Amino acid sequence: MNTPKPISWFYENLPEEQLIEDKFREIIKSNYSLSWFTPIDTPAIERLDTLLSKWWDDNEIYWVKRFKADNITEFDIWLRFDLTVPLARYVSMYKWNLNFPFKVQNIWKSWRWERPQKWRYREFYQADIDIIWDWYVPLFADVEILSTIYNTLKGLEFWNFIININNKKLLEWFLQSLKITKISEIIGVIDKKDKVKSIIPMLEDLFLNKEQINKILELLKFSDKKDWLENLLFFENIDNELLKEGILELKYIYNTLLKSWIKEEFLKINPAISRGLNYYTWLVFETFIVWKENMWSISSWWRYENLCSNFSKDSFPWVGWSIWLSRLLSVLKDIWLIEMDKKTTSMVLVLNTEEDLLLKNLEITNNLRKKWIKSELYLDSDAKFSKQLKYANNKKIPYVLIYWNEEAKKWVVKLKILSSWEQKEIKIEDITSYIENILKK
Amino acid sequence: MNTPKPISWFYENLPEEQLIEDKFREIIKSNYSLSWFTPIDTPAIERLDTLLSKWWDDNEIYWVKRFKADNITEFDIWLRFDLTVPLARYVSMYKWNLNFPFKVQNIWKSWRWERPQKWRYREFYQADIDIIWDWYVPLFADVEILSTIYNTLKGLEFWNFIININNKKLLEWFLQSLKITKISEIIGVIDKKDKVKSIIPMLEDLFLNKEQINKILELLKFSDKKDWLENLLFFENIDNELLKEGILELKYIYNTLLKSWIKEEFLKINPAISRGLNYYTWLVFETFIVWKENMWSISSWWRYENLCSNFSKDSFPWVGWSIWLSRLLSVLKDIWLIEMDKKTTSMVLVLNTEEDLLLKNLEITNNLRKKWIKSELYLDSDAKFSKQLKYANNKKIPYVLIYWNEEAKKWVVKLKILSSWEQKEIKIEDITSYIENILKK
Repeated sequence: MNTPKPISWFYENLPEEQLIEDKFREIIKSNYSLSWFTPIDTPAIERLDTLLSKWWDDNEIYWVKRFKADNITEFDIWLRFDLTVPLARYVSMYKWNLNFPFKVQNIWKSWRWERPQKWRYREFYQADIDIIWDWYVPLFADVEILSTIYNTLKGLEFWNFIININNKKLLEWFLQSLKITKISEIIGVIDKKDKVKSIIPMLEDLFLNKEQINKILELLKFSDKKDWLENLLFFENIDNELLKEGILELKYIYNTLLKSWIKEEFLKINPAISRGLNYYTWLVFETFIVWKENMWSISSWWRYENLCSNFSKDSFPWVGWSIWLSRLLSVLKDIWLIEMDKKTTSMVLVLNTEEDLLLKNLEITNNLRKKWIKSELYLDSDAKFSKQLKYANNKKIPYVLIYWNEEAKKWVVKLKILSSWEQKEIKIEDITSYIENILKK
Repeated sequence: MNTPKPISWFYENLPEEQLIEDKFREIIKSNYSLSWFTPIDTPAIERLDTLLSKWWDDNEIYWVKRFKADNITEFDIWLRFDLTVPLARYVSMYKWNLNFPFKVQNIWKSWRWERPQKWRYREFYQADIDIIWDWYVPLFADVEILSTIYNTLKGLEFWNFIININNKKLLEWFLQSLKITKISEIIGVIDKKDKVKSIIPMLEDLFLNKEQINKILELLKFSDKKDWLENLLFFENIDNELLKEGILELKYIYNTLLKSWIKEEFLKINPAISRGLNYYTWLVFETFIVWKENMWSISSWWRYENLCSNFSKDSFPWVGWSIWLSRLLSVLKDIWLIEMDKKTTSMVLVLNTEEDLLLKNLEITNNLRKKWIKSELYLDSDAKFSKQLKYANNKKIPYVLIYWNEEAKKWVVKLKILSSWEQKEIKIEDITSYIENILKK
């Protein structure tokens, strides 16, 4: 006998937690579908030659082999570490069958070996949306994606979030104006701002002088100011192409969003958002959950100019956004912002009173189910009533129906409301509509 | 540049096919939930020591390794080949947190290396329901599972199916009465009945004589008779314990189902259904799609008496049923019993007429979305109208809205119905409710 053990950093839910994860997945899916991002679902396994290894650390990849075979497969296969590389392969393979702009959603698991970190799992759900075009993706695609993400987070009835936006063109201009040359290293340091106590030692290590460091720190405080748009406009007088473009793009995004969907308190310019990876282009976004003094990143955005170039002559630029569902749920659980939802379990338990009355009790259950009322007939007619009632209580089933000899004589069903122990006798032909009415309230 | 290639026997869908798969998954899930089977979702990866290898061919297992690591993990891990072994591990691990009878659903992928066969994939969806109890599962649990499967198949609007039922007690008695000793070998041959041209040579190889073979063939024809219940009752006079039990159990299942849910034409006794594997107990069921001369098995049932014995001191007997979703869909697609459902794509395309009118067009789109009408604003305001209309046409979006300079002056929106090329002008404040009304019809 083996005592079963979990695999470290692979999570799984108890039934009551799973109900919440499923509900979140459904809400995300219906919001993605409302703005019509079409669903796809690619295999969990890809060929190794599909992997764009220059972008990834091999060490994080799970490799798949047949158990007994030594050299039977003619190529190596691996578990996907994200949904993006498989999508690039999918678009390149089926480009003749797809309609562009291709707006797509993908809510699925990926696998990634990483050093243990709180709220980071080695198997995790991401909920991605992407817009892919054959040659050029207009800035409005970012607006469409941002507003879909905003709606989705609202749909989750979650209000403690902030969408941070930035344009690295501003950051680059700013660092240039300070006569700083090691721009990408400095951006790398700025990206760590919220993860370390102070970035000053790191900046000193890169040989910045005091004045340069102070100016950078001042810029980073910029995001705390309420009137950031005015601050931004202040820069407009400076004659620099990069800066002007940057401001124009940010203003377009900000104004369109604010005038269509998003309330001001959910949007914030944050020059520290730079996202280290080099395949991200100028505009960057990131969404945080905010609770008391803390912030947690729960979602990420990207814009690639030619991710498919490994597979296809077409460049297929695209923008996308991912909600890190597994991480979001564990953050919410830990900070107690979600409670178990009992309402999604079954609503009615019909007691299995006696084998001879099975067919009648089955009929009562079936009539409820025909009206889409989630209901169960207890499975064992030999079980004592107390045991059956205990089952209802443990599962928090609110209504219990009893049809036994006494009720059969009177042609009624006894309804027991477990929260109040109230009891009622209802005519057998009225019971379905009676329960329907209670549930409507 | 790599031309992307698929991995053999891993399937993936084009977007229009994916819509159907998703719709099937949703219908299955809502029917499973109606009878309150609670959802769970276990990791795709399990520890190798969880694998009950005595029941499985190692050759079919996908083994998972870290790409660069040699001996870093302290135990071997593998991709699950079904949802049953992970469930046995789950129940044993969390038994103190679960309510028994534990009614559970699991709709997920598994991975299995198998020799190529039509409609059999190496990555596939199964949609399982199971009832697990701590010491004994009454026969009524089979009825609950059977009626849930029946409802689900009906919910898929699919009527060409037959649920075959059998009790191996009858088969065993029958073979005993023919003085046959190699009973399990013979049952193995009978199980192949629908897969080979004739089982006669195989029975001859097992040294059966002509009379024995004829009797077996006669029994197998039994299922073609309409009055099988009467045939069954004919056996009731024979004084044999095994036979009597077998008949009693079959009669219970048959009568309860027929008098509650299932119409007679969907149920059939079929003595050939024996399911080779030795961990199945006496009662066996199997569901087939029937189309013209052909039958395809799309679902399977099981009853285990102590599957958890590897992990736990408790025996945890259980019954379960699986719909092989990937196989079902590919069978249906090949025999043309399903058509693409266009209605689940977006309903309205709002033309992106001009950058200056973007906010107004965005407002029109957002108002539709607020009423949960799936709609899109075309992403590029520079694109010609003809290009935007072509996009609507390719995606079969039925309604197009145009708000441009001319419309702005008149305070209207132009509605274009693509199927008829009909055009109408609607007041801008009425457009959402107008579309809502059309869609209600």
